[in-house]
Amino acid sequence: MSLHKWVRPNVLALAGYVPGEQPSPRQTLIKLNTNENPFPPPEAVLTAIRETSRGDRLRLYPEPSARLVREAAAAAYGLSPEEIVVGNGSDDLLTMILRTFVDPGEGVAAPDPTYTLYAPLTQLQGGRFIPVPWAGGERFELPISALADTGAKVIFLPRPNAPTGHVNSLEEVARLCQAAPGVVVLDEAYGDFAMDNGLPLLPDHDNLIITRSFSKSLSLAGLRIGLGFMSREIATQMHKVRDSYNLDAVAQAAATAALENLSTCEKNTRIIRQERQRLTQNLQERGFQVIPSQANFILTTIPTGKRDGEGWLADLKTHGFLVRYFGSDPNLADKLRITIGTPEEMDRFLGVVDQLLENNQTG
Amino acid sequence: MSLHKWVRPNVLALAGYVPGEQPSPRQTLIKLNTNENPFPPPEAVLTAIRETSRGDRLRLYPEPSARLVREAAAAAYGLSPEEIVVGNGSDDLLTMILRTFVDPGEGVAAPDPTYTLYAPLTQLQGGRFIPVPWAGGERFELPISALADTGAKVIFLPRPNAPTGHVNSLEEVARLCQAAPGVVVLDEAYGDFAMDNGLPLLPDHDNLIITRSFSKSLSLAGLRIGLGFMSREIATQMHKVRDSYNLDAVAQAAATAALENLSTCEKNTRIIRQERQRLTQNLQERGFQVIPSQANFILTTIPTGKRDGEGWLADLKTHGFLVRYFGSDPNLADKLRITIGTPEEMDRFLGVVDQLLENNQTG
Repeated sequence: MSLHKWVRPNVLALAGYVPGEQPSPRQTLIKLNTNENPFPPPEAVLTAIRETSRGDRLRLYPEPSARLVREAAAAAYGLSPEEIVVGNGSDDLLTMILRTFVDPGEGVAAPDPTYTLYAPLTQLQGGRFIPVPWAGGERFELPISALADTGAKVIFLPRPNAPTGHVNSLEEVARLCQAAPGVVVLDEAYGDFAMDNGLPLLPDHDNLIITRSFSKSLSLAGLRIGLGFMSREIATQMHKVRDSYNLDAVAQAAATAALENLSTCEKNTRIIRQERQRLTQNLQERGFQVIPSQANFILTTIPTGKRDGEGWLADLKTHGFLVRYFGSDPNLADKLRITIGTPEEMDRFLGVVDQLLENNQTG
Repeated sequence: MSLHKWVRPNVLALAGYVPGEQPSPRQTLIKLNTNENPFPPPEAVLTAIRETSRGDRLRLYPEPSARLVREAAAAAYGLSPEEIVVGNGSDDLLTMILRTFVDPGEGVAAPDPTYTLYAPLTQLQGGRFIPVPWAGGERFELPISALADTGAKVIFLPRPNAPTGHVNSLEEVARLCQAAPGVVVLDEAYGDFAMDNGLPLLPDHDNLIITRSFSKSLSLAGLRIGLGFMSREIATQMHKVRDSYNLDAVAQAAATAALENLSTCEKNTRIIRQERQRLTQNLQERGFQVIPSQANFILTTIPTGKRDGEGWLADLKTHGFLVRYFGSDPNLADKLRITIGTPEEMDRFLGVVDQLLENNQTG
């Protein structure tokens, strides 16, 4: 087999993205590792999903551009349907953005550390990924000039950022849009958990694209739904790159129902924000450092002791909790990312942390 | 707005694929235009879809590689799960194939005319699309040497072909695999309606990839599910290109149930084959030429008379039937593609054809 003769060199070179662990249905682990929502989707969404199984809806192709979803999103967010593009998850939108703007060898920049998918997606597209360290150490200031000076065709900025959970001010984002030589992608996968979002910037910055996910604040990670907000001109180009039927009929029905019933999820979001505050405070009282987060997770530095990051990961798993550890990255070697769960899950989690801390003395 | 400064030239140049017309739910047109199945999906599939709305399945990410789907497909088709890659529709697999193998400027070939999506997908990837006319006129023989001589990295061959419905022998396909300088993609979106398929060729040809769709024979166009069969080595590379969660949890449940309940769909397929034969014969008796089809549609040349292709399209629509007309292509200007419907739909369709023929004399 002459794979090297056939396969693109940059695909052969790719390690492939490793998603967070998904325990098998038989395991009873509490998942605090992939930033899913601990609450189920609203009943109206589940009803809409069941409705799709009636009649002959599923034997027919879905509406190609997810018109009803875009109309519901336009109403919810004060946009026009022509300014909205749907994705099979927001990762699908990230791929579409790269395929719309980035030719081989062109630059794609992002502050570092950030969402680990930007780099392999760029490599896959044949682009050159340029990580730019956050400014000001753990104050995570936006390195506006350094990002603009890369000459990148696309700059990714998650707000809140993953895995830190911090946000940069909208004023900084606006300045980045003005300085950027190409397109700025404000990745708001976790945007609903923050105090504000980038929508007000959209009318004044024609190089701004905002992406949203239904996987976090809307409790629908199982369905893969994302939205992109952008100028009509950019949307027209993105639709050419989009697979003709990228969002299936069930996901379209669920997305429309979710957008028409945001209040249930907003209630869950308020609980998650409270629990984020409580977890942050409780971990700090126990000797963990915690970066102030506006997401549905926190990034925490483990206290000194005999247990390193791997150790915490393993022992938490033994006690029924999956968290995320980014072992290979030296910036993150002493840190854990913990998704916010329900109040009951957070109570149990803090109980386990106390148990483990009793047994964390060196020597 | 400086779109030209930002957007890739080959995206700006793309016209964008135009999917077949989908009437609004209020219209009562019978859709014979996009090769959907006239029968609903099996009840077991609909039950599996409803089941996904219980418990907390949808708030969690789906299994990244659709393991249960691949296991069910492996059992159904006599393969190993490691030889199978899932797609969000088989179009998603076509994109993945191009992104795995084709660098800018490299060739992608297909016989002509064929599925109209190969050309824009190639252009999007920066490849050079090379259409090679079928050999032997309307005998549609496979131009093996001409295809191989293009030096293409990827050769697409739908079997049955769209929009002709014809099949080339498996012996010809094997010879193409041997002659091809790159990968051969046997697109079996309509394969279940044919007398045989390419699976027996897989073990002996490591450059062969077979793609399947759940949109036609399995009545699930609404859900976007495709399968790719290939060597383990190629599958490993394709998984790197695949979006980590490209198939959502509902589609995975439906696909697994469909693969475990193929007999209902096989019964429907037998009816469709019978109706294909009956429609072919009846149209021939009425002065239409029909290419022998092994798909769930036929391509027919309209009889001479005052009504041209556009005219037939419009008048059939007035009488409640949507069919597909590829006006712009000179090879297809006098042809209509008609999807096979239920026996009742075909009765009504032939009745309308008789009515229109009464009123088709020139002068």
